[in-house]
Order: sequence, then structure tokens, then C-alpha cells
Amino acid sequence: MNREELMFAVRRFAHAPDREGFATLVRASHPSDLAEALLCTSAQSLSALLLLLDPQQRADLFAHLAFSQQDELIALLPRQAVYDLVERMPADDRADLFNRLDALSRPDLLAGLDGVEREDILTLSAYPEQSIGSVTTSDFVAVNSAQTVTQALAHIRTLAPSSETIYSLYVLDDQRRLQGTVSLRDLVVAAGDATVASLVRPDPVSVQAAWPRAQAAELIRRYDLLAVPVLDAGQAMIGIVTVDDAMDIDKQQDANQLARFGGTAVAGGTDLDMMATPLRRMFSVRVFWLAVLTFFGIITSTFVAAQEELLSQAIVLAAFIAPIVDMGGNTGSQSATLVIRSMALGELGLNWRHVLFVIKRELPVAAMLGITIALLEAVLAWFSKGVGVDVLLVVGLSMLVCTALGGVIGALLPFLARRMGTDPATLSSPLITSVMDLVGVFVYFGFAWALLGDQLVGAGA
Amino acid sequence: MNREELMFAVRRFAHAPDREGFATLVRASHPSDLAEALLCTSAQSLSALLLLLDPQQRADLFAHLAFSQQDELIALLPRQAVYDLVERMPADDRADLFNRLDALSRPDLLAGLDGVEREDILTLSAYPEQSIGSVTTSDFVAVNSAQTVTQALAHIRTLAPSSETIYSLYVLDDQRRLQGTVSLRDLVVAAGDATVASLVRPDPVSVQAAWPRAQAAELIRRYDLLAVPVLDAGQAMIGIVTVDDAMDIDKQQDANQLARFGGTAVAGGTDLDMMATPLRRMFSVRVFWLAVLTFFGIITSTFVAAQEELLSQAIVLAAFIAPIVDMGGNTGSQSATLVIRSMALGELGLNWRHVLFVIKRELPVAAMLGITIALLEAVLAWFSKGVGVDVLLVVGLSMLVCTALGGVIGALLPFLARRMGTDPATLSSPLITSVMDLVGVFVYFGFAWALLGDQLVGAGA
Repeated sequence: MNREELMFAVRRFAHAPDREGFATLVRASHPSDLAEALLCTSAQSLSALLLLLDPQQRADLFAHLAFSQQDELIALLPRQAVYDLVERMPADDRADLFNRLDALSRPDLLAGLDGVEREDILTLSAYPEQSIGSVTTSDFVAVNSAQTVTQALAHIRTLAPSSETIYSLYVLDDQRRLQGTVSLRDLVVAAGDATVASLVRPDPVSVQAAWPRAQAAELIRRYDLLAVPVLDAGQAMIGIVTVDDAMDIDKQQDANQLARFGGTAVAGGTDLDMMATPLRRMFSVRVFWLAVLTFFGIITSTFVAAQEELLSQAIVLAAFIAPIVDMGGNTGSQSATLVIRSMALGELGLNWRHVLFVIKRELPVAAMLGITIALLEAVLAWFSKGVGVDVLLVVGLSMLVCTALGGVIGALLPFLARRMGTDPATLSSPLITSVMDLVGVFVYFGFAWALLGDQLVGAGA
Repeated sequence: MNREELMFAVRRFAHAPDREGFATLVRASHPSDLAEALLCTSAQSLSALLLLLDPQQRADLFAHLAFSQQDELIALLPRQAVYDLVERMPADDRADLFNRLDALSRPDLLAGLDGVEREDILTLSAYPEQSIGSVTTSDFVAVNSAQTVTQALAHIRTLAPSSETIYSLYVLDDQRRLQGTVSLRDLVVAAGDATVASLVRPDPVSVQAAWPRAQAAELIRRYDLLAVPVLDAGQAMIGIVTVDDAMDIDKQQDANQLARFGGTAVAGGTDLDMMATPLRRMFSVRVFWLAVLTFFGIITSTFVAAQEELLSQAIVLAAFIAPIVDMGGNTGSQSATLVIRSMALGELGLNWRHVLFVIKRELPVAAMLGITIALLEAVLAWFSKGVGVDVLLVVGLSMLVCTALGGVIGALLPFLARRMGTDPATLSSPLITSVMDLVGVFVYFGFAWALLGDQLVGAGA
């Protein structure tokens, strides 16, 4: 069933609830697809639909719904249904849901759960948003190194229905400290009487629950893991982060980096989100950067205003300010993003060899770009405005220097950002442009004075 | 052993090869870490080190080395060692290596391989770079639906050593068409005499080998898969793409998108790469965009030049052109990246409801930003240049309109890009800036004429 058909079917059931029919549809579809088809369904209809399903199906579907819909449903569904739901949800989604509840509703929810689940929610939700703890699931399987393979597999079979994954298994000591890992692959391939101890890999990669999420994703990606164990401050294992969550974390991190590069980097707290960030914060973060850029602009415009004498002699010079200083920012934007890209892929790092390598690569390209664009601009300026040769020379030379300089400076800025200990994308495109504007007007009027200055002297004499 | 210690150990072995010692080190370390530590080792030393290892260890380590090092080693290692290596390498890395060889070396390599591997390489490497075929591995496990669980597990045990993963298993018919999938989890949990057929999930998600890589990664991420089956044009299954490769593909795609947003989008072929793209292509792609921006700039500057009369009356107007028109680009860059971010996370799509939602969110913020920045600019202009109230009014009002308009236009451009069927990041930051430059000069001089134009009339009279 394709997307269209699924949406149609869902809409039909929303209007005319049919237990058999809907349960069959849910069984036959992937929860991600169903959740997408249900995006536009009202909370009331959604509530009625969910109550048509058995508790496990309901919990599986619920975990995939949009957060805003989950929150609405928690308020609408009958209390017992909410408790069943929360009990059966994956532990990490459950902790997320709990964290989104307001302070009044939380004790209510905890009251309806077993001691085990209650403690689990409290442990996981104690970690701040954006930390590894907030994406950790405690539904992992621990095995005993003294067991045989056959015993371990029997143990796994009983735990499988409530486990996030059984492909990575963990060997813990009495204090729940991580001793090593075993893969299901190794267990299945080994002889039944082999001991788990003979298959355990010691010194496993692990992360701390308090670390930023991105580090869990980084390690999973680097070591091709299916899951990474999460330890608390006392080195006890509290859960795992699975590879599917790691993919989502990476996607978010990269999307956030793009927005930061657009000029919306935040000092602390969550990155700006067009969908969810309150107006106030959206304004305050963005106005900060625009104000910084405004200050840059004032310096630039003050300098230009001081060139009044020169400008009044050759008004046409004013026309070229923007295109020329902009080209520095354009070329700089190109080279900066190419460097940031390579840094993100782990190909460039903060060391002199790499800085020199980048300069070596960018210099010839920036020079060639400068010459080409300068010629283009000069030709176009001639045809469109019929300016004199001296002005053409000023325009051409400025364009050449601005373009080439822009490319090189743009390529170096990401290294500067890393040196300052910040994500390279924080030196955003608008910032690069503003810096090059300032450099550009100095270059432009420098050439203008050098080549046209004598005209003024002559006029004044 | 941490990174420092590993590099030190590796350097020691490179100078004084020691079979036992190096083999132990390799056994105790993760190939990713070893490969990183070996990055600066010369090809000759690396070759000697590899020959200290047994063929399987050698192949595992080799597959993790940087591509440039792999290529150098293929030329340096003894022929038989190369054949052993290639035979044991994972099928997707092998096809990649083959594709990087020049046309003369390829027949040589094929000659030393078995028929099975030869055909495998040729099949996988037939697909273009950037297609799913190029990251497909043929090392998957197929099971027969008529088998019992016990029989299937025995079958899996024999194939495991040479399989990329045994967690996802595939049921094929006689023409190798995909009937369904089974997970190892389901097999391990089921009773030994249950049939595979009772556990098979029909209608599995699959991809075509000719599709772009990004689609395999997208599906793996969307459905939380560990691997996705790859079919050829005749619907026969040729291999799988595993989740670890999907994470790397996603990382590349996102990094490429950032570079495109910086103004380096390509029409076809691979995205620009600061490390590897030849100078010629680096120049031609970038000069294309810079030329487009130059043309935009000429239109803008021609318009400004035509305002000669007004400018000669109020030279100070020239000083504010750049800061004001830039602010439109800055605000537009912020809103555009926020929208692109939400699109990348699947929260916004190409439909009117979302467009209206974005406008509704952006309009108040852009208006508030416009008022604030306009006031800031006016105050700074007053203090730095002591301009008259009328000029302040022109500057303030233009700043307000440019900022607000920039925010709204920037937020809409990604939708326009999607409507045109292209990645939103193609409407790059420099392009947004140039568009807003043009809009900005119209707004600025519009206000200038409206509020100062009477001065000219007076002067002329």
C-alpha cells in the first residue's frame, strides 16, 4: 500500500472506526508509515483509533507518533490505557515523553506504574536534554560469562520480547560494571557447550550518560556498532544507544550545523527550530547576530562616508561598492563551506599541515577566479555604464583582490573557529560576508585613491 | 591503548618489524583506530607491516585504510598477496577498490580471482559512482522458506564467516527475486521445528541498484533497518546495503549539502571536495556561480548608477547602501537555513499548509527584527555621522523593510527550490544575498526618492 492509499485508508477509519479492519491495517503497515499518514488526524479521532487496538499494537504505534500528538493523546486517553501504553513503550521514548509532561502531570503518571518502570523513567529522565542519557534505553540484555552458549541463548529468548535489541549482549559484574560484550552472531556460530567467557570481547567502547548525544553517534559511526553501552558516573551500565537512534542524532546534528552556518548559532540550550522554538527565543538569538552584523556594517559605512570627497568626484564609484565587496563574501562562502565539509568528514583537522594544504589548494583557484571575475565585471561595466578606463581599472583590480582574498580568508576561518574551540559553522555565512565587506571597502577605496586620487588633487589645486 | 600510544606503537613497528608483536597489536585494536594511526606511515613501511599479518587480519585492516594508501599498496604488494587480499575483502570495499584502478590494472586483478569473485566485482562495479550499486555488498545470507528454524540456523552458521551480517536474512525464489525477510532475532526466539515460512515478513522494503545512494540511507533511517536489500533491473537481489554504510552516506550527503549552500552546487557528477577535486573542476563549478552572482551584481549596480542625481545631492546615502541591503541577505540566510533544517528533518514538505505555517511563524519575528535593527542602525548612524533626520528616516525605514522582507523571502526560497525539483541548498547563501541586494536597492532608493526627492526638485527649480 503506498502513501496515498494509506492516508485514504486511515482517513476512512478515522470517520468510521472498525476494530477488525484497523487492526489488520496496523499489522500490515510499518508504524513509521502509519504515523506519517496520521499526522493530520485530530487527537480525538486518533484516540478512538488507538483504543481499537490491543495494548501492544497501541504502544508500538504510539511510540512512532509525532511528539505533539503523543502529548495531546496522554491528556485524552483513559488513565488505564495511558499506564498500559507507558509500560509497554520503549524505555527511551518513555523517558522522552515523561520529560515533556508538565510538573503537575508527572507524579500522576508515575503513580500508575510498577516500581521497576518508575525507577527506570526517573533514572533516564534525570539526564539533561541533548545528553546521551536522554536517548538511552534500558531495554538491553545482560549475560553471565560463566554460562554456556546454550544457557545464554535460552536466557536471551525469554528477554527478547521486551528488549530493544538482542544482537549486542553485555557482561556485567555485581556492581553492574561493564566487563565486555558478546554479539549474537558469535553465540549462534559457536558450539552449544562453549562458555560465554570464551567469546566475550573485553575493553568495550562505552559512553557516559552525561556526555552530549553527538558523541554516542560518533562512536557508533566510527566503530560500525549496532549499539553502544551507556555508563553512569559510577561506571555502572544503565542502558544502550542503538544505531537507529544514532542515525537520527547525526541527522539532527548536521541539520543544526546548517542552520548555525546561516547565522543562528546559540550559546547554550537547544538550537533554533522553525517548528517549535518560541517566538521570543527565535527573536533574541537572531537579533543578537543581526546586531553584531549591524555593528560591522556601521564600521564599513563610516569608512565609506569618509570617502565623500572621492565619491563626489566620481559618483559612479558608489554603484560598484556592493557588487565588489559582495564577491569577497561569495568566494569566501564557497571556500569556507568546502573546508567545513571536509572537517565534518574527518578529512581536515586543526593542524598546520592541513592549513598549509588548504592554502596551497585554494590560492591558485582563488587567483584564477579573481582574474576571471574581474575581467567579466570590467567588460560588463564598460557595456552597461560606459565608464572611463581609470574607473574600469579600479573596479577590475578591486574585484580581483577581493575575490582572491575572499577565497583564502574564507578557507582559513573554519580553522580559526576550531582554534577558538567552537564549531566552524558558527563563523556563519553572513559573518564571512560582513568581514569581507570591511576588507573589500578598504581594498576598493585604496585602489580608487591610488588611481583616481590625482584627479582630486588636480581639482583642488 | 589510547590514540597517542597506538600511534607510538605503530611507529615503533614500522621501524622495527616484529611479527608477533604487530599481530598482537592488531588483534587487540579496532581496525578503524589502527588505520588512523597508520595514516602517516609510508606505503613501503605499510606494505612490510601488512605482510607480517595472516591473510585474514591483513584483509580486515586493509579494508579500513585510506583509499590513497590502498591504491599505493596494491601497486607495492606481491601479486599473490594482492589476490588473497581482494578475495577476502568485503564485497563493497572490493568493488570500490576495483573502480579506482586504472583501466590497465583491472584485467590483471580479475585474472587472479575465482570466477565467483570476478563476477561479483564486475556486477557491483558496473553501477555508477554515487549509486546504490556502488555501496552494495553481495555478502548476504539467503534462507529457504521450506527449511525449519534449526536447519536455517545450521545453514547460517556455515555462511557466517564470509557474510557482512547474519542479522537480516533473505528469502529468494528460483530467479533470485526477493520474497521476504527474516530476522535472526525471530529465528533465535522461535521453536526449532517451526518453519522459516511462518516467520517470513512479506513485502519487504527494497531499493534498486541504480538509484542514488541517499535513498538507501533514507529508507534504512526511516524504517530503522539493519540492512536493506538491493535489486537489479530484473528484480533479482544482488546484495544489501548495511546500516553502517548508511550512516556514512548520510554524513556525506549532509556535508555536501552544506557545501552546496555555500555556493558550490554541481549540475552533475560528484560534489566538490576540497581534498580531491581537480583544480580545473574546482574552478569551473565555482566560477559558474560567481559569474551568475556577477550578473546579478551588474543589474544592481546599474540601478544604483542611475541614481546619480540623488546621490550627488546626498553623498552620505552611498555609505549606507551596503549595510542596508546586506541585512536583507543576513536575515534571509537565517530564515532559509532554519527552513532547510526542518525540511532535512522531515518536518516541512512541499505543501501549502507548511508554507503558510512558515510565513505565520516568520512574519512576526522578521517584523520585530526589522524594527529593532532599524532603530539600532538609526541610532548608530546618528552618533557616527550626525546625519539629518530625513536621511535617518530613509535609512531606518529601508532597514526595517529590507530586514523584514529578507526574512520572509529567505523563508520561502527553499519551497521554491523544492518546487523547481532541486535541493533547497542549491539556492545558496550568496544567491540569497544577491537577490536581497537587488530588492534592497529598490527599497532604499524608493524611500530616498520619496523622502528626499523634493530636495532635488527644489534644487532644480
